[in-house]
Amino acid sequence: MTDLLTDHAFQDTYPEELSHCYGCGSSNPHGLHLRSTWDGDETVATFTPQPYHTALPGFVYGGLIASLIDCHGTGSASAAAYRAEGRAPGSDPALRFVTASLHVDFLRPTPLGPPLTVRGRIEEVKERKVVVSLSVAAGDQICATGRVVAVRLPASMAPPPPA
Amino acid sequence: MTDLLTDHAFQDTYPEELSHCYGCGSSNPHGLHLRSTWDGDETVATFTPQPYHTALPGFVYGGLIASLIDCHGTGSASAAAYRAEGRAPGSDPALRFVTASLHVDFLRPTPLGPPLTVRGRIEEVKERKVVVSLSVAAGDQICATGRVVAVRLPASMAPPPPA
Repeated sequence: MTDLLTDHAFQDTYPEELSHCYGCGSSNPHGLHLRSTWDGDETVATFTPQPYHTALPGFVYGGLIASLIDCHGTGSASAAAYRAEGRAPGSDPALRFVTASLHVDFLRPTPLGPPLTVRGRIEEVKERKVVVSLSVAAGDQICATGRVVAVRLPASMAPPPPA
Repeated sequence: MTDLLTDHAFQDTYPEELSHCYGCGSSNPHGLHLRSTWDGDETVATFTPQPYHTALPGFVYGGLIASLIDCHGTGSASAAAYRAEGRAPGSDPALRFVTASLHVDFLRPTPLGPPLTVRGRIEEVKERKVVVSLSVAAGDQICATGRVVAVRLPASMAPPPPA
């Protein structure tokens, strides 16, 4: 039996009108389709860059790493907000977050080729703000760390729900 | 007459083996091809997102904004380092920078459609480190600000020059 609290990728539970994000929206045919899940009290996603996601030959483009941290951060924020309310991700009303600030420290060059593991740790959950600390690893080696301050989707960005 | 100190996009002067970056490399056929130039003591680039660079419908994906800040930051760092040495961008030895840390504050939702203007201000130039403050604007409205700490390309990332 599927347990919506744990098994589904957070992004798969977004309402359709909120699932067009280039980084993680299931409805964006051009996008990266990052999918994040719980792993105990942490969140995790894996992503294999394309051969053209190059910084210098052989290494992953930093903007892609920032994008993975960004989307895994807002997805983790949403999941943490649902968990704090004891609700299944995707249940109404939707709890969708956007990034207020993003910080990335590139610790070492990230090899291009192997899948990358993105991990999130929930640092703070308030009603309208969630803070997530993140890391991006290739194999056992952490190549970048980051921090996302996510805030509830402002009304000015919210698309109308389907009629 | 072309003045290499001012007229060329910084990224167009990178040696071929250093121009494969997804965000700004002229040799990456899949990439964004950001092109940055001097504008007095500031640096500037313009970029028009694709319709699929969506966060929520109608708004630009934050990971793309972070990518523009990242690449304009490292490009500006390279140009500032050349300028500090009184040399034309692209002259040997190449001064190529990578990002050590990236910070982005998303001030307001960025409308998807109009060209975006990315501006950089050089805050600090040392031999191996350049700090750049940046902004991303749609029309007259600044939508995001950022800061890039760029460091000289480490030997471990440098591809061999062509034989």
